[in-house]
Amino acid sequence: MMRSAPVFSTAQAAEEAFYDAMQRGDLPEMMSLWADDDEAVCVHPNGARLVGVQAIRASFEEIFAQGGVDVRIAGAHIQQGAMIAVHNVIEKILVSGRMGTEVVECIATNVYVNSPGGWHIVLHHASPAGERSDPELPVDTSTLH
Amino acid sequence: MMRSAPVFSTAQAAEEAFYDAMQRGDLPEMMSLWADDDEAVCVHPNGARLVGVQAIRASFEEIFAQGGVDVRIAGAHIQQGAMIAVHNVIEKILVSGRMGTEVVECIATNVYVNSPGGWHIVLHHASPAGERSDPELPVDTSTLH
Repeated sequence: MMRSAPVFSTAQAAEEAFYDAMQRGDLPEMMSLWADDDEAVCVHPNGARLVGVQAIRASFEEIFAQGGVDVRIAGAHIQQGAMIAVHNVIEKILVSGRMGTEVVECIATNVYVNSPGGWHIVLHHASPAGERSDPELPVDTSTLH
Repeated sequence: MMRSAPVFSTAQAAEEAFYDAMQRGDLPEMMSLWADDDEAVCVHPNGARLVGVQAIRASFEEIFAQGGVDVRIAGAHIQQGAMIAVHNVIEKILVSGRMGTEVVECIATNVYVNSPGGWHIVLHHASPAGERSDPELPVDTSTLH
């Protein structure tokens, strides 16, 4: 039996489903949340810009091959329109490594669009949260702008 | 004589003015382009998240103290609504350093809102464009998501 995709009546509900799918590493659920839009853009932390759902699917497939991402979000700042909503959030990601478990913070801008099929994500831009004077960065991009 | 701020009838025009102000390091012009919004968000490459126009002004003041930023944009992907527009662009920034001049690429998500005073920028999220497998990054954030 095919599972029908849920219809989200708010961008907030779509965002909760987005991070839930990421947490669980659920590829079909994740991809059901994206707008079927050639202009859809996804930037993973330190990643290249991916455009279109096909490239975005491939990236999540690769990420989820290692399981879900232990992520919680906080500190939302929202611009809400009738057809477009923009959420900027802090992602707190639990990462297990050689040095034990640590929380890595990323900043994410998520854009949702409203359609007859409900709110879908159309842009996800995540980057590591940093200080502008981080001396460990290989290229001193802190003075770029 | 006080200069009156221009009124932009499109998000595209506001974006051109934004990068022109950055190019020239023009702080009054730059700040006239921002929406006067407590929810305004600015993330400079590798920077912390700045919220509200006061923090944003301070950051541009610091950046422009060293002059303008030699930046060109390319590859825009746009979501256009009646009240909100989202532009994702590649910033090509000319940086002079010990190793000569190089072009550093950043990815930027810019959000514009429409108001009686025209289109203003309300969110700028820029991060260095990377490949997910860049071995030089100090923290392996490539597997975060």
